[in-house]
Amino acid sequence: MRKSIAIDMDGVIADVEQQFLDWYQRDYGTLFTKDDLAGKNDDTLFPEAGLARRFVLSPGFFLSLPVMDGAVEAVKKLMETYEVYIVSAAMEFPLSLPEKLEWLNINFPFISWRNIVFCGDKSIINTDYMIDDHLKNLDNFKGKTIMFHAYHNVSANHHVRANNWDEVLNILSKENSTK
Amino acid sequence: MRKSIAIDMDGVIADVEQQFLDWYQRDYGTLFTKDDLAGKNDDTLFPEAGLARRFVLSPGFFLSLPVMDGAVEAVKKLMETYEVYIVSAAMEFPLSLPEKLEWLNINFPFISWRNIVFCGDKSIINTDYMIDDHLKNLDNFKGKTIMFHAYHNVSANHHVRANNWDEVLNILSKENSTK
Repeated sequence: MRKSIAIDMDGVIADVEQQFLDWYQRDYGTLFTKDDLAGKNDDTLFPEAGLARRFVLSPGFFLSLPVMDGAVEAVKKLMETYEVYIVSAAMEFPLSLPEKLEWLNINFPFISWRNIVFCGDKSIINTDYMIDDHLKNLDNFKGKTIMFHAYHNVSANHHVRANNWDEVLNILSKENSTK
Repeated sequence: MRKSIAIDMDGVIADVEQQFLDWYQRDYGTLFTKDDLAGKNDDTLFPEAGLARRFVLSPGFFLSLPVMDGAVEAVKKLMETYEVYIVSAAMEFPLSLPEKLEWLNINFPFISWRNIVFCGDKSIINTDYMIDDHLKNLDNFKGKTIMFHAYHNVSANHHVRANNWDEVLNILSKENSTK
């Protein structure tokens, strides 16, 4: 049986951080960089309190997210070897559900509806690997974890870190070559 | 740690069968009964080919589903002992996503968004129990299964059958008393 991977959306295949930077520049005229955001969290991301949450709750936010660099090619590559599931903790923002599904259909049309999961808590997800940026998802996962780099996880070091999709492919290719 | 249960929506907490009967009477004037449907499947349910699918694809179908008899009380009861997740294979019908979420908020407002999962294939769901009416979900499940009675599963006998929510509670209470 093929091994399975649960891949997160926001911050992993969808570049939420870039969208935050773009929208901040659009609304406030200041262009921050990803380096400026490193080490912050959703509450402290911008000088304006609660702004990240306001962005996330805006209609169109999820539908217009840029695709993470290299994600399409990497996910296609992984699908040759693994059963790939897209697993998004989408239930916290119910309005995001149709946008997230449409975004996947537009940007990852090769992923079947059978392999898409929108959930709240990810602790009931049972795959061999999980690629995610959030510790709350990775820490409770029973399989092997890959932590995708994000501003809010820069100080964590108890999961294998991937800074980009090339590094994810490298990590998984080493996993396979040692078996 | 509390044991966990994945509970299906359609045919388990939402009475899809009753909605089919009601809508058929509304549109064709004939009142079938649940006994009339026993042993049929979604393709053979009504004399008119494809009608069940047409109903399911109609806006409002999922939002207006009647609650299955006894489901609210039983789910509340189970939540005293178990971590209860509502797991629906909703991805096949993307338009159903917002309706299903709204239906849950209206009829099961005591269930947190953290415990709701909309997926395609349920094989990556990892709970101790699964209550479902579809063999395709139950057959691949690694934990203990309870098959909720439905017209399409009357001839299956390789899962513990519950004909209604009282029987589900009985089965689970016997499970616990033997430990």
